[in-house]
Amino acid sequence: MEGPDAAELEDRWRRALADLDNLRKRYARELGRERSAEREMVTTAFLPVLDNLDRALEHADADPRSIIEGVRSLREQALAVVSGLGFRREDEAGVPFDPTRHEVVGVVQTDGSEAAPGSVVAVVRPGYGAPGHQLRPAAVTVAQRPES
Amino acid sequence: MEGPDAAELEDRWRRALADLDNLRKRYARELGRERSAEREMVTTAFLPVLDNLDRALEHADADPRSIIEGVRSLREQALAVVSGLGFRREDEAGVPFDPTRHEVVGVVQTDGSEAAPGSVVAVVRPGYGAPGHQLRPAAVTVAQRPES
Repeated sequence: MEGPDAAELEDRWRRALADLDNLRKRYARELGRERSAEREMVTTAFLPVLDNLDRALEHADADPRSIIEGVRSLREQALAVVSGLGFRREDEAGVPFDPTRHEVVGVVQTDGSEAAPGSVVAVVRPGYGAPGHQLRPAAVTVAQRPES
Repeated sequence: MEGPDAAELEDRWRRALADLDNLRKRYARELGRERSAEREMVTTAFLPVLDNLDRALEHADADPRSIIEGVRSLREQALAVVSGLGFRREDEAGVPFDPTRHEVVGVVQTDGSEAAPGSVVAVVRPGYGAPGHQLRPAAVTVAQRPES
């Protein structure tokens, strides 16, 4: 039995090249579309927070104290959106320092009685992220045993 | 001059097929990465709003009235983030009704002296979007000439 002849093989080769070219173009378009769709999805997730900011201000002058409750629930809502997008808030003190999640902004000398050396004493600014996808590290102060 | 022989053409064809296969695998990986990157970028853009929500609450009890100013600037900040992501806020009254940007939630009868028939009388809930990329339409009431 004979295999395909040269003309047939050249035809196959040219069609494969055309497929490659089309695939490249299609993927370039899809990549842009996927990015847009993701941007729209994530921004839309935050719109209820904006709505409640509007609402909080509408009622602010009537009862200034009620706005504190409003801001408290706004904060919960915003955190729930971020967490729903898959990013955990990192704001725990007392945990061991972890260079993949913490950024040291201060060192506190300790003899170990109040905080374990190498542990997070305080979180100055919370971090946010998912494993392998850190939005930003938590800015923390860390306990250190005094040098003797 | 002779062209490439059958063996050479078959080789080219097989290499083009392998390229196609690799391209498919590479793009599948890239698509996921691009989506993650976009999600991280957009969420990160909102983190300063979360920081200021934290801060507003820290100072709330000291001076409840100051929190109103805080919420006002929080709202400006959140709107600036959304606008920086390319999405315009749609909250104008008096403009002609536009089905691509407005959703009618109420009709107001008018003889045309106060509001032009077919114009937006009031925005009940603002919309957000970019041309061709609407996050959600503005919920509006629309002026209508009474049927005679």
